[in-house]
Amino acid sequence: MAEYGAIINGVRDSLTDDWRFIENVFKLLQNADTFCADPNQWDRQKIVHFMQPDELKKLINLSVNEEEQCTRLEIEQLCQQVIQYSVKTSHGRFHNQLFGQLDPYGLAGALLTEALNTSSYTFEVAPVFSLIETEIISTVCRLAGYTQGDGIFAPGGSASNMYGLVLARYKRAPNVKSTGMFGMRPLVLFTSEDSHYSMKKAAHWLGIGADNCVAIRTNDNGQMLLSDLEAQIKAAQERGCEPFFINATAGTTVLGAFDDFTGIAKLAAQYDLWLHVDACLGGAALLAYKHSSLLTGLQKANSFAWNPHKTLGVPLQCSLFLTRESDLLARCNSIEVNYLFQQDKFYDVSYDTGNKSVQCGRKIDAFKFWLMLKARGYGTFGHLVDHAIDMSRLLEQKLRERTDRFRLVQDTHEYSNVCFWYIPKFMRVPKNEENEQWWTRLFTVAPKVKQQMAYSGTLMVGYTPLSSRGLGNFFRMVLTCFPVLKTEELDFILDEIERLGEMCVY
Amino acid sequence: MAEYGAIINGVRDSLTDDWRFIENVFKLLQNADTFCADPNQWDRQKIVHFMQPDELKKLINLSVNEEEQCTRLEIEQLCQQVIQYSVKTSHGRFHNQLFGQLDPYGLAGALLTEALNTSSYTFEVAPVFSLIETEIISTVCRLAGYTQGDGIFAPGGSASNMYGLVLARYKRAPNVKSTGMFGMRPLVLFTSEDSHYSMKKAAHWLGIGADNCVAIRTNDNGQMLLSDLEAQIKAAQERGCEPFFINATAGTTVLGAFDDFTGIAKLAAQYDLWLHVDACLGGAALLAYKHSSLLTGLQKANSFAWNPHKTLGVPLQCSLFLTRESDLLARCNSIEVNYLFQQDKFYDVSYDTGNKSVQCGRKIDAFKFWLMLKARGYGTFGHLVDHAIDMSRLLEQKLRERTDRFRLVQDTHEYSNVCFWYIPKFMRVPKNEENEQWWTRLFTVAPKVKQQMAYSGTLMVGYTPLSSRGLGNFFRMVLTCFPVLKTEELDFILDEIERLGEMCVY
Repeated sequence: MAEYGAIINGVRDSLTDDWRFIENVFKLLQNADTFCADPNQWDRQKIVHFMQPDELKKLINLSVNEEEQCTRLEIEQLCQQVIQYSVKTSHGRFHNQLFGQLDPYGLAGALLTEALNTSSYTFEVAPVFSLIETEIISTVCRLAGYTQGDGIFAPGGSASNMYGLVLARYKRAPNVKSTGMFGMRPLVLFTSEDSHYSMKKAAHWLGIGADNCVAIRTNDNGQMLLSDLEAQIKAAQERGCEPFFINATAGTTVLGAFDDFTGIAKLAAQYDLWLHVDACLGGAALLAYKHSSLLTGLQKANSFAWNPHKTLGVPLQCSLFLTRESDLLARCNSIEVNYLFQQDKFYDVSYDTGNKSVQCGRKIDAFKFWLMLKARGYGTFGHLVDHAIDMSRLLEQKLRERTDRFRLVQDTHEYSNVCFWYIPKFMRVPKNEENEQWWTRLFTVAPKVKQQMAYSGTLMVGYTPLSSRGLGNFFRMVLTCFPVLKTEELDFILDEIERLGEMCVY
Repeated sequence: MAEYGAIINGVRDSLTDDWRFIENVFKLLQNADTFCADPNQWDRQKIVHFMQPDELKKLINLSVNEEEQCTRLEIEQLCQQVIQYSVKTSHGRFHNQLFGQLDPYGLAGALLTEALNTSSYTFEVAPVFSLIETEIISTVCRLAGYTQGDGIFAPGGSASNMYGLVLARYKRAPNVKSTGMFGMRPLVLFTSEDSHYSMKKAAHWLGIGADNCVAIRTNDNGQMLLSDLEAQIKAAQERGCEPFFINATAGTTVLGAFDDFTGIAKLAAQYDLWLHVDACLGGAALLAYKHSSLLTGLQKANSFAWNPHKTLGVPLQCSLFLTRESDLLARCNSIEVNYLFQQDKFYDVSYDTGNKSVQCGRKIDAFKFWLMLKARGYGTFGHLVDHAIDMSRLLEQKLRERTDRFRLVQDTHEYSNVCFWYIPKFMRVPKNEENEQWWTRLFTVAPKVKQQMAYSGTLMVGYTPLSSRGLGNFFRMVLTCFPVLKTEELDFILDEIERLGEMCVY
């Protein structure tokens, strides 16, 4: 290897050209096949060129080495390969996760954020972004009916839900911050059996324990049963535990169900429990008009989490934790940090928001969302959310029209998730022959169709079982705001599942 | 407001043009003043156009509204304002934080990551990125001397350190995952008084309590005193607590000190404690040649955290948690998640790494780092780390040469942090007149010079007190790999502090 000084000078001298490489990236991003944003091209553009892990490892030179250096041309080729073999989540036929399909203004904001590469802990290093974060938080508080709320951006919904638990615990027992939970009666939280797994992981991390995260039964719509909730609260009290927290869900992961927040809030008040709402998915209904009643009662919650990267098309990740109490977040999480949150600065240090966070460095997740809201107004997003839900109703109707080929998991649904089975030709039998064996077999269909989806690259829809109902695999289709689908597209989805479904070997 | 259908159609019809807005963003990013990457332009380019919060609020139209929509031109103007009033952390004279000053290949990777907008939980939605994450983790394990290690990318060093605590607790008491810590003797962890505040916040969040995070005294170099460590372990045992965890630091936040890992590892083994190393800052020395001995003994740690977004110039954020034990991370954090980590997929699901994480959705933080390593080889970064440290030694020497005007906090330093006071003209007195009052006054200088820095926009260097020494505010200058400074630049830094220092009103 060349000697130290020569290497250092070499890097220094090539930096101007290295910066020019960014222009090559722009060209890659201008290629229509990177985003697949034009509906007229979807028939031609694959969402994914699926390769098995071992094949992909052979195809892309993944190894990093001490001395080996790629040329700029080779780096560009690697980038092209990465684009080619990555999933195009902005393709209008990617319906595999609760995120996907960007708002271009959100992407514009994300690109600028990356370029400006700063952290949102202090006004000093993030002056504009700090103000923007505050603007978003106060706007969302207002929309949620929190007159004196506060909030913070967190790295995803799991973290946002954890903020709720930590705040509730601090409110109940402020000493936990200093002395821990060792002397306490076991704290218990309650969440529906259909709620997100992050509550259980959070209970583990926060030292509460997954067993103290009690699963509450749901009704046929996927909503927490208030009778079971109350019974479980009492049962926890009776076994000497201390109930402290209810997590209600606005938009469950699979069915998209909304719990009865008003009813749950009453129980929370009666038993003196903190009510948190995991609105990571369904928080977008805050902006809706026709479907705004989904969130009735949200303002009674002590806190909630919302991921605008779901439904709205904000780039990953954009997750908000909000609480009704104005100063609790700061009191709970702040500690003395002399090197960062100095109190003798030359500006009003109340604009340094980082000490409210459990993180130190923190991505700027507010700006991309803000740019979208500036470009369209949040009312437009309200209509887009309504449209996504309306389209899901239409899909439900179309599924019903193809009743011999598809079967709905629920008769009606609340949000934009539609869950259904595909029935391959060889399984289409008279209803009375749909016995247990038939159903068991039906549960094996979705994974097989999914494999065809991946290899064809024409459509991606997720599948899942639902243990709370004893149901095996079915498709969960999720509609989002972008790219503003037309009804013909819904026909394509069902036609394509039928086409792929008949290519499988069962 | 227009009717629902018209609004939906309007958004759909404008989307093609909206996507074209991305090209305007490229133009903004091609403007030389966005990155300030050319050393020849630094004299002309301000790092920040500082405005007080209230002024900035008047200048930029921050409010988001229901119906108000900005035109594309207005959005572009807003973006221009955001760039103008944001801090240019890639400017070669930004030395304010431990991050800053990007590698352009890292930025290239970050831009592509944003564009491809996916989450690193499953191979299904992140095929290439999953393999890249695994490649980076196994490379870093190898460099650290972990023959069978495992790891995960986390949203920042605080989260990575938390992983260490959760793993250690799980190893000590696996039942905590299910039943929590309520019945246990208080768990106690030990960390130096100069270590990062994230350990204390983590102790709070994880239910251990900040008081059970015991601060160990440091020596004059800022290294944990082994004698005090052992005394505190014994004291904790004697008061009926259960010591379980030592956090050693590789590169303390202020002084950049490296603890004696070999000595601490011996104590950890003797008392059966988990040894974690917070190498968020100093982990870059893993790649170094001349200065590799800084990390001697790291391979004896059970786990460590490293933020390549510090020192190396990977864009924020890029933080790694690594552990020596191959399957512990999965056993500790995984739970059954049927909708995401299905076991009946059509590929080898061991490539789905997300269940090891406490997060659900997770940013792709590996790719930008990988692209840098592919472009330069990690050996080059080793030399760049050596160079950053060498330059800091040179700065130390230059400070010593200006001994009437500057005073070093330490005679020698280990990493690339250099800590010093500026002595304004009116305070330059014979040594024997440097009494307590003089020192107290000196501690007020840095914040005043800092204010001048912000308003002039010519230089940004952080300041901090150091309570473990009873020291008031001094400058903490941090050198990083990019943009590969020349020695003249060090003279500029000191000249500029002198110039600004004489503009202050004391």
